[in-house]
Amino acid sequence: MKEEQKESEDNATCKGYLHGLAIDAVIFGFHDHQLKVLLMEYKKSKIFALPGGFIRDDEDLNKAAHRVVSERTGLQNIYLEQFYVFGDHGRSDPRSMKTIMNNIGLQHDDNHWLLQRFISIGYYALVDFIKVTPMPDKIFDGCAWYPLDDIPELMQDHAQIVKKALNSLQVDLDRKLVAFNLMPEEFTMNELQAVYETILDKKLLRAAFQRKILGLGLLERVAKKWTGGAHKAPYLYRFIS
Amino acid sequence: MKEEQKESEDNATCKGYLHGLAIDAVIFGFHDHQLKVLLMEYKKSKIFALPGGFIRDDEDLNKAAHRVVSERTGLQNIYLEQFYVFGDHGRSDPRSMKTIMNNIGLQHDDNHWLLQRFISIGYYALVDFIKVTPMPDKIFDGCAWYPLDDIPELMQDHAQIVKKALNSLQVDLDRKLVAFNLMPEEFTMNELQAVYETILDKKLLRAAFQRKILGLGLLERVAKKWTGGAHKAPYLYRFIS
Repeated sequence: MKEEQKESEDNATCKGYLHGLAIDAVIFGFHDHQLKVLLMEYKKSKIFALPGGFIRDDEDLNKAAHRVVSERTGLQNIYLEQFYVFGDHGRSDPRSMKTIMNNIGLQHDDNHWLLQRFISIGYYALVDFIKVTPMPDKIFDGCAWYPLDDIPELMQDHAQIVKKALNSLQVDLDRKLVAFNLMPEEFTMNELQAVYETILDKKLLRAAFQRKILGLGLLERVAKKWTGGAHKAPYLYRFIS
Repeated sequence: MKEEQKESEDNATCKGYLHGLAIDAVIFGFHDHQLKVLLMEYKKSKIFALPGGFIRDDEDLNKAAHRVVSERTGLQNIYLEQFYVFGDHGRSDPRSMKTIMNNIGLQHDDNHWLLQRFISIGYYALVDFIKVTPMPDKIFDGCAWYPLDDIPELMQDHAQIVKKALNSLQVDLDRKLVAFNLMPEEFTMNELQAVYETILDKKLLRAAFQRKILGLGLLERVAKKWTGGAHKAPYLYRFIS
């Protein structure tokens, strides 16, 4: 707890962190046939935002991003992609920030560093939904999953950040095989196809999809366990480790 | 001149610019069958670096990048892509920076802002080589083109930035048709194919390449003007405007 307190104080004064720079993370999970993102709700303010954080003086940028995402999900070794820097002069939202600071009892004047201009480096993360334990901290009431097509109004330009993250994920999808990071350890080909179809927002031809994915030589069949009914059990696959 | 002086002074004190943030630009041109990049040579120091600059307090990040590239090339409306943020803690190179500062007569102590940690936002630019007028300014002896496979040693992590820019360009090549930005107004199909082959560092099948490019429906044939010899003159193409 002492370390947490220290970190919170350091945060309040910006001591030990780079000025004017933030990280915002769009954490994608796939659940219930939907692509979902993890959102924070600031205390008592009904203001929603992406999980984010700052970069320590002595910390590599990418490590800071991993730390920020780990703190909110409880996961290590997360698949992260830096996708864009949001640096418009007018992107700050001092009114929301003042409300948040008032509600969490953070004393400030108009020159407080949190009210200044920030440039935000956007990362998207792909996680296995069921492994995540969403973790708020003392300045948030909530940290929860929201379906991508039903997210609340977000502060600052965070809605734009989510949109740009999704675009980047769509572009990266084939090239980097990133979608596997959204899957549980074992999955059916239909489940994988559903993830692709949801991200790309279009139907794919089943035979062509399976041929392409299996042609990569990255998956192996798992011995059948499924005994759910009269239908033929689908094959389960996992990554060749 | 007065404005320039003011800007130079502002630069020296960091006044009016965001702290700890820089832009580095990898400006690609195609000439003489080679992909080339524009590099700066600092005054009297034989230290080479990418063109770069800082972001004004009241300036959008992307506008700052356009300004930086315009200042070095003399061009407006340049094709720019933000491709990565370089933020490792150890990426600074205070020794080179001190040499540079000494050589240009910039008084400083060890706490000078230019010697602190910088996070650099990488942009690549694609320009029509023949339209560029490389422009050094008072802190540089040189601003010149270097073939990508024969560039001098660069300060900081600029060699890594060039490499990452090339990787990004390769990935973007088909998806965004960015290569056209490297072409003159009129060009032959062979010239366009040479650009693709150079960037991708591999030979392409001529028939397939032409079919693909012409299939995009973006080019129109120009009336033949070439009268250079006995061979059949190749068609010239340009963008449909």
